[in-house]
Amino acid sequence: MTDIEQRIRDSFAAQTMMQTLGAEVIDVSEGLVRVSAPVLPLARQQQGVGHAGLTFSIADSAAGYAALTMMPPEMDVVTSEIKINLLAPARGDRLIATGRVVKPGRRLCVVTAEVHAVADGETRLIAILQGTMVPVSPS
Amino acid sequence: MTDIEQRIRDSFAAQTMMQTLGAEVIDVSEGLVRVSAPVLPLARQQQGVGHAGLTFSIADSAAGYAALTMMPPEMDVVTSEIKINLLAPARGDRLIATGRVVKPGRRLCVVTAEVHAVADGETRLIAILQGTMVPVSPS
Amino acid sequence: MTDIEQRIRDSFAAQTMMQTLGAEVIDVSEGLVRVSAPVLPLARQQQGVGHAGLTFSIADSAAGYAALTMMPPEMDVVTSEIKINLLAPARGDRLIATGRVVKPGRRLCVVTAEVHAVADGETRLIAILQGTMVPVSPS
Amino acid sequence: MTDIEQRIRDSFAAQTMMQTLGAEVIDVSEGLVRVSAPVLPLARQQQGVGHAGLTFSIADSAAGYAALTMMPPEMDVVTSEIKINLLAPARGDRLIATGRVVKPGRRLCVVTAEVHAVADGETRLIAILQGTMVPVSPS
Repeated sequence: MTDIEQRIRDSFAAQTMMQTLGAEVIDVSEGLVRVSAPVLPLARQQQGVGHAGLTFSIADSAAGYAALTMMPPEMDVVTSEIKINLLAPARGDRLIATGRVVKPGRRLCVVTAEVHAVADGETRLIAILQGTMVPVSPS
Repeated sequence: MTDIEQRIRDSFAAQTMMQTLGAEVIDVSEGLVRVSAPVLPLARQQQGVGHAGLTFSIADSAAGYAALTMMPPEMDVVTSEIKINLLAPARGDRLIATGRVVKPGRRLCVVTAEVHAVADGETRLIAILQGTMVPVSPS
Repeated sequence: MTDIEQRIRDSFAAQTMMQTLGAEVIDVSEGLVRVSAPVLPLARQQQGVGHAGLTFSIADSAAGYAALTMMPPEMDVVTSEIKINLLAPARGDRLIATGRVVKPGRRLCVVTAEVHAVADGETRLIAILQGTMVPVSPS
Repeated sequence: MTDIEQRIRDSFAAQTMMQTLGAEVIDVSEGLVRVSAPVLPLARQQQGVGHAGLTFSIADSAAGYAALTMMPPEMDVVTSEIKINLLAPARGDRLIATGRVVKPGRRLCVVTAEVHAVADGETRLIAILQGTMVPVSPS
């Protein structure tokens, strides 16, 4: 495991929201992080599919950690802004969020994310996101 | 309690994500809904403050239900897209999300939301959101 | 005229895009700038109303200059990101964009803007925007 | 020239904003439209590079026409919302906006766009956009 992969897994483990949602990091490379989560009974909206907040949460984490892969080792990252377009209901066994860095930078890091739902072996794009991550000194 | 208030409370009760986050509806009027939630230990990011997904989730629900107050009784609502700008860390005893309808419509309903954090009796604006809700027939 | 008002008017005069669109600054105070523009025949879309690019352009300038009112005198400002929701066609004699600072900051300044269309003496909200401005050293 | 290509070129010719900016359609296929424009002296911001409104305008048109390629022949399209992240100054001889359909639909069509600047034979990504187009009956 590389240093950055270890840092991301340690940081992710400290995000209790990710544990609550049952999420895990499944892929880390330079400028790309994938997070996977089941659609747990505790994360639904009124129609019984995954809440937009579930889709957003794992995509935000994936995009933030993708940004972290391209920052100096001493920095942490916070979300400045993100926009999500929801394309289809979060229905299925599992959601996979892929965060990618579009433009790294010392002050701002522009990212995108895609979220796919996996149901009965089929994969469907359910959301796209576009946002900005900002490097901060760890508190 | 008005009919719409009852409908929103019933729908909200069916959103398991809101129960997981400890959220509750605290205000309903035409075009405005407020949702309040504590910053539970289970909804944190790596620095120990509330995860962006917590802030987003309650704001999304508040904005969606604000839209629902202005739709025909037989319709439900889903999020089409939202953008969130995070202004300050989600730190405090409680977050309050206020969703408002800017422009109702049969096909699209444009909404905004603000999220405030309450800490030691002080209230601070921590996020603003702008998005689109879409009426759908209940499944 | 205050110093900041003079600086904004000088900078605005250098934005040839604003001259092309016939736009002018009509209001400057701390954290708020208003820009007004006619819906010129040269700025239309295919249905004969104002192009989304016209609405966006004056709102972007209004929001950017609102940010500038709250920055140190030696700094300039550029747009990092903005999201626009279009509520109604840009139809009328004149559009008025009001840019406001929601949260000033040394690294990022979060802004909103509203655009109203004035037609036959009636004013109608046609767009809302939410974005981030970034201070930069003038080149 | 295909029917849809002809329709797009006719509609584009009616967008006076595109003529003002010197823009032209350079590529049309199913779900993808490219628009190219010079950075004219009339479309600059205060630092002498292209105004964000120029970048936005051609990206909005490219994304809107990309949506139109996937709609029934009798429908027109309007922008519901778009978010733009600006990555670098609009500096160069020419900007090229590429609009793409991510998810077509009868009520909503989700699109993205990228804008590249071409300077001295080099191409640089300067903006990404993500938005929603809505089909409407032509007036």
